[in-house]
Parts: sequence; structure tokens; C-alpha cells
Amino acid sequence: MPGNSLDPHLLRYAKRTDGMRASAIRALFAVANRPEVVSLAGGMPYLASLPLEQLAAEAADLIAADGRVALQYGSGQGIPELREQICQVMALEGINAHPDDVVVTVGSQMALDLVTRIFCDPGDVILVEAPSYVGALGTFSAYQAQVVHVGTDDDGLSPSALDAAITSVRASGRRIKLLYTIPNFHNPAGVTLSMERRPQIARICADAGITVLEDNPYGLLGFSDTVYPAIRSIDSENVVYLGSFSKTFAPGLRIGWALAPHAVREKLVLANESATLNPPVFNQMMISRYLAGFDWQGQIKTYRQLYAERRDAMLSALRTHMPAGTSWTHPDGGFYVWVTLPEGFDTAAMLPRAVTARVAYVPGTAFYADGFGTRQMRLSYCFPTPERIAEGVRRLAGVLEGEQEIMRTFGAGAGRRPGRLSGPNSPSTDTA
Amino acid sequence: MPGNSLDPHLLRYAKRTDGMRASAIRALFAVANRPEVVSLAGGMPYLASLPLEQLAAEAADLIAADGRVALQYGSGQGIPELREQICQVMALEGINAHPDDVVVTVGSQMALDLVTRIFCDPGDVILVEAPSYVGALGTFSAYQAQVVHVGTDDDGLSPSALDAAITSVRASGRRIKLLYTIPNFHNPAGVTLSMERRPQIARICADAGITVLEDNPYGLLGFSDTVYPAIRSIDSENVVYLGSFSKTFAPGLRIGWALAPHAVREKLVLANESATLNPPVFNQMMISRYLAGFDWQGQIKTYRQLYAERRDAMLSALRTHMPAGTSWTHPDGGFYVWVTLPEGFDTAAMLPRAVTARVAYVPGTAFYADGFGTRQMRLSYCFPTPERIAEGVRRLAGVLEGEQEIMRTFGAGAGRRPGRLSGPNSPSTDTA
Repeated sequence: MPGNSLDPHLLRYAKRTDGMRASAIRALFAVANRPEVVSLAGGMPYLASLPLEQLAAEAADLIAADGRVALQYGSGQGIPELREQICQVMALEGINAHPDDVVVTVGSQMALDLVTRIFCDPGDVILVEAPSYVGALGTFSAYQAQVVHVGTDDDGLSPSALDAAITSVRASGRRIKLLYTIPNFHNPAGVTLSMERRPQIARICADAGITVLEDNPYGLLGFSDTVYPAIRSIDSENVVYLGSFSKTFAPGLRIGWALAPHAVREKLVLANESATLNPPVFNQMMISRYLAGFDWQGQIKTYRQLYAERRDAMLSALRTHMPAGTSWTHPDGGFYVWVTLPEGFDTAAMLPRAVTARVAYVPGTAFYADGFGTRQMRLSYCFPTPERIAEGVRRLAGVLEGEQEIMRTFGAGAGRRPGRLSGPNSPSTDTA
Repeated sequence: MPGNSLDPHLLRYAKRTDGMRASAIRALFAVANRPEVVSLAGGMPYLASLPLEQLAAEAADLIAADGRVALQYGSGQGIPELREQICQVMALEGINAHPDDVVVTVGSQMALDLVTRIFCDPGDVILVEAPSYVGALGTFSAYQAQVVHVGTDDDGLSPSALDAAITSVRASGRRIKLLYTIPNFHNPAGVTLSMERRPQIARICADAGITVLEDNPYGLLGFSDTVYPAIRSIDSENVVYLGSFSKTFAPGLRIGWALAPHAVREKLVLANESATLNPPVFNQMMISRYLAGFDWQGQIKTYRQLYAERRDAMLSALRTHMPAGTSWTHPDGGFYVWVTLPEGFDTAAMLPRAVTARVAYVPGTAFYADGFGTRQMRLSYCFPTPERIAEGVRRLAGVLEGEQEIMRTFGAGAGRRPGRLSGPNSPSTDTA
């Protein structure tokens, strides 16, 4: 929001606030949260399966027995026990790490903020997948970094597109600081970086002197038995890895982490202290007790089964209801399906009509820094039940039918805002 | 840390990391935390008086009854119930505020970070008291803002010094964005802005178009019955007010807040979301239940009595043990006494010898952005018992005696690093 003449602070803000806008879809999502709306928009994990009674007893014991520590200030790096346990969690994806190189943060979002803070001056380029996580794009914008999208397909980020992007950005005289990538069960694209490409991406970045920022909140939520090795397991010197308990346990304690090469880790700790003094000690101890005393791997299995069923429900409903010419990705884990509609649709313009029809999604443009994604949308299957998912997709199909009716009457693109129809390659293979 | 030739990321960091250093005293404080050392260094509140059993039961009930909400993502602005309660807390200091203008943050440190983020471009000037809170100086440096200190005395920030600083900074062509001030029971100076000066400071800043950043973690921890009205209670349009539950309840949940004029608040919410998505919901609900179901004002009274006794113990020990020519402030609340030693002492250089003598403090230079504070130190009385405080000051006096011995033998300033002896006016009135 550019402010108005009534804001006496208007001329006092930092330049970085120029890019800071409350998006038009925020107000809409307030409506979309009403119970009668099937929200396929949010990324909220489904917490009903958590052992709340036992967690309640654990929290009580923590405060009664260790309250003077749990409620006190703590270390800016995070408590040692939790950092050791985090190394055990990461070992599941082939990562060999030392607790000294782990920095606990207020969700991995804070880690994303701090890594951007220590690497990026205004104008520096960050390479990101096309499309990419909306919260990362916001953070990069807050640090006035320039986002350059790199094409992806059903095997994730394309090495040849990465090579080409590096060459082209450098030819323009700009400086590339980071490659930001979500290799597993991508948000929003729902694709996974193939085994073959992982060492290729790692090598390209190492050779080019570009630090890889590997964001992996969904890695343990795969639906098959394939375990993809983290990029960090291939290159420990050139990768900063971000992890989170938000999806494998619960987001309400806001505990995530960064694993970084030693010199980077030192700067991250200082930045963490500068931002929050320390992540909440109670929350860290609670997660530590959860990892030590609960069947957390069993809980992850429960989540995987739950989300796999919901993915199936969504894909099945898409096959049944989507109009000809629509394509979507087939996620093998995580929370999201990325849908590409036929030419002529504008998912942002259509959203108010969708919410009126009691279904919500996130328009594709939210996941691009450059206006692409007009006919794409992200559908999430993590929170609603399979029945609600089917109903939501059916409602969505009704909205699409209405849009096609309008297009047939008034011509394609009627009511669509001006803008390019498609971005760099983004995954969209199977067609209904 | 400037990095070394083994850090492959060395040339990739942002310019803002140039000012990012692990201070030499960090390693020393690891030693100072040993039980045999009396630490007069830290600002940790003394939590022994908290009703841990009842808090444990409350936490258990919260998770058992509301776990699916408490452990889920939440709003970037904070939960409405807590924002309403925060308005009731602020009413105790004369603030009339609407919950819509409150933004809950991960400690008030995060609010400090976000306010700096939205106001300051690199090179912008922030006026701060001399001395000032070390954590604020670190945050301002992280955003490459320039700190200009303004003289203070026993009545707090000096209006005439503020006027002079504004004139002088503007004459140099630089742009002033914020006045950062801790009006009550100052950290580290232990002084309080007088009643008369409050409207003067508010008016000077409003007239000059400088936003006041009022940081008030200690306001309710006064030892007399005087309640100082917040600067925000005088001017609601030009003040961003920061509050915290860290000192009135406990710091381990990391819940603080900003109260801001409406337009600023909108930007703060967006910045808060960009940094952490949302402050932890469990922690907010826990504080909300604490405010609703516990005698939180009684707890504050308990803290006030506890800290008043410790303040008395410290002032008494200082009177007994300090060498002639030493002066210190007489805090009427809060955690800290600011000590000025006679000419020739260097508190930073002396610290290793103090820790060897099993007493720790924070050297004065930590509280200045410009190298002043050489012969000052901050002594905190919040955590150790009165007996330990007396013992700590006795040990400190022994160290000072040893230093004076060396000075008599080798001349004043022996072993002292080069540097100016004193900064702008800083409070130091009574002499032993």
C-alpha cells in the first residue's frame, strides 16, 4: 500500500517498503475461511491425528519440572539437545551434519529471512524455480533482491535452464547470490527434483559460486518409499539447508532450522540474535521432548497416509471434473497440485466468483515475481477431508464452466486483466 | 568476523554483514555463566516466584482443549484476544489504544527489527540515548542505519541535547528517521525520563518529523508508586511503542508487541508475516490465559519488591566498596545500575581479570555505537540474590583495587586500549 496523504510517516519509510503490498487476495481469503467455503487455498497441516492428551501432559511436566529454564532467555543458536536431534532427523535424508552447524529459528521462514539478510544486497539476483513459494518471494522482495525464475518440469528444476539463466543474468551484469530451491514435493508445483538432477544442480552452483538455499519442509512426507537424498547430502560446503517441524509435527510452535557451512552458521547465529534474541526456549524443549518421547516417525507415517488419500481424492476429482485442455501435476508427496487451465482463463480475476461458489484456491500469479501464472492455480489437499476435496473440485469445475460460457459469448480473455499468458516452462504435463 | 580464506562464501555476503561481529566478550560470558562467578552482567529476570504448577496445568489444558488451534498456523498480526488484553496492560501507563493497532511479535526484539526494517534505508540516522540498549544498536547496525547518540542525564534524554543533535545531523545532510528511547528505568543507564521532559521530547520529534520509537519493557517494574505516562499516551500519531511480557511475566515464550499508528501498523503486519509467518500461536494463547486467569498484577508487585530489595543491596554495596571518584545511577525501577569509574580505568580491558576474580559485568563500550563508555560498566541486580550481589560488588572492588595498583605503578591508562575517555553526557551523578 502506497500510503495516503493522512499518513504522516509516508515520506519516512525505507525504500524496501515500496514492494510491500497487502495483496488483493488477502481480503478474499478472510471470506474463504468461512466454514461453508471449501478452501483448497491454505497450506495448513491437518492436526487431528496428533496425540493431544499426551502432548498436554508433556507440556505440563516440562513447565513443572523445568519451568525456570523453559521460560527463561536462551541461546541464540538454539538448545544443544534439539540441535542434536535435528541432525538425527536430517540423517533420514542422507545428511551427515554436526549440531554445531545447526541454527534453530522461529520457523524455517525466519531462517529464510536471515539467510537472505546475510547474503543479499539490494539488486542481487536470487534464482528461483518457476513457480516458487510465495513466502520466499515476499522475503526476497523485502531485502530488495531481484528474483529470476528458472524453468522447471515434472522432474523439478531444469539443469539446462539453470545454466542458461546463470549465463543470461551474468551477461546483464548482475550478481547472483543464491539458488533458492524446494527439491521435494514442491510448493506450489507439486513436483520433485529427480535423482539424476540433484548432483547436476549441486555441481552447476558450486562451479558458478552460487550458494544453494535448499528449502525442505515436505521431504519426509513422500507417498512412496523412495527417499530422495537432500542436495546438502551431496555438497556440504555450498548448501544452506532449511528444515521445519511445521509439517512433520505442527506449525504452532514455530520451530525450524538452518544447517549451514561453519562460517555461514556464525553469521546466522548473530543475525538470529539480532532478530529475536533467541527462539522460544519452551517451544524448543517441547519439540525436543516430543522427538525423545513420542513415536514421531509413526506420526509422520500417519500424516503420509492421510495426505496420500487426499491427494488421490483430488487427482480423481480433477480427472472427473476438469474441462478439456486442463493439465495438472501429480505430486508424490507434500500438499499441493499445480493446475494449468486452457488459454483464456485468468485465475486471479476468477477468484471472487470461485469464492462466491464456495471454493477457494491460490491464483498462480502469487507464485511468480514477474506476473506470470495467469492461467495457473495452486490447489492444496492437506486440510479438507477427501469428501470436501471432491466437492471443492466439483464447485471449481462449475466456476470454470461459467467462465467458458462468458468466453464463448464475449471472446477468450473477457474480464481478464492484461498480462502475458505463460511464463518460463513450468510443470504441466497431463491433460484431462 | 571478517571470514577467512577457507570460507568459500566470503565474497558472497551482503554488505550489512561487514558490521556483524561476534564480540570478544561473548567467549568470556561463557565462562561468566559458571556458578562460581557472580554475574552482574545478564538481564535475565528472576523466575523463581512464578506459579509453575498452575502454569503447567494451564498449558496442559490449553493443548488438550485447544491444541488444534494452538499448534496450528495463525494470523500474522497476533490473536485478537491477546491484542485486546495488551491494550488493557498499556492502559496502566495511560495509553488509549485499539487492538487493531497492536502487532504481536517474537519478543519486542523482533518488533525492533521490523520497525527498523520499514523505516531505515542504509545511511539513515537513528538518534539514541547515550548510552543505549546493546540489542538495539545491533539491530540498527544490521540495517546499516547510522546511530547518533544524544546526551542524557539523571532525568533521562535531554531535550536541549536532542534539539542540538537534530540540528547538527541535518546540517551534515543526513536524514533522521527515528528517535529510539527507553524512557523508563533505562537499559543500561538506570535513569527515567522526567515527567516534564516527556511532552517536550514528543513535541520536538513531531515538529521535526521524526518518528519516536518508545521501547518500554520495564515500565511496570517501578519501585515507587509513581506511574510515568508513556510518550505514546501524549502523541498517538508519531510514536511506535514497543512492549514485552519478558520482564513482567517471563521471556521464554518470546511474546512482545508493537503499537503503531494505523498506516505503520499495516506495514508492520506485512513485515511480521515476511519474517516469521506468525508469532507462535501456542505462546500467544498461553499468555492470554495467563492474563485472564492469573493474578498478573500481583506477580508484577512480587517482582517489584524482589528487584527493589536487590537494587538496595547493590547500591549499599557500591557505597561500601567502590573507590573514591566512582559514580553511579540510582534506578527507581528496572534491572540496571550504570557505573562510571575514575579516569584511567578501562572496563573492557579489565573484564578478563574480573571474571578471574569470579565477578562479571558488561563493559560500557557495548552500549555505544561510537567507542565511548571506556570507563563505564553496566551492573545488573535482577538475577543474583542480595547476598550474591554484595559478594559480587566486593569482588569487583578488589579488582578495581588491583587495577589502581597497576596504574600507580605504571601510570594511568596502563593496559588500556587507546580511545576517548568519555562520550556525550551520560548519567553519572552521585560519587562514592
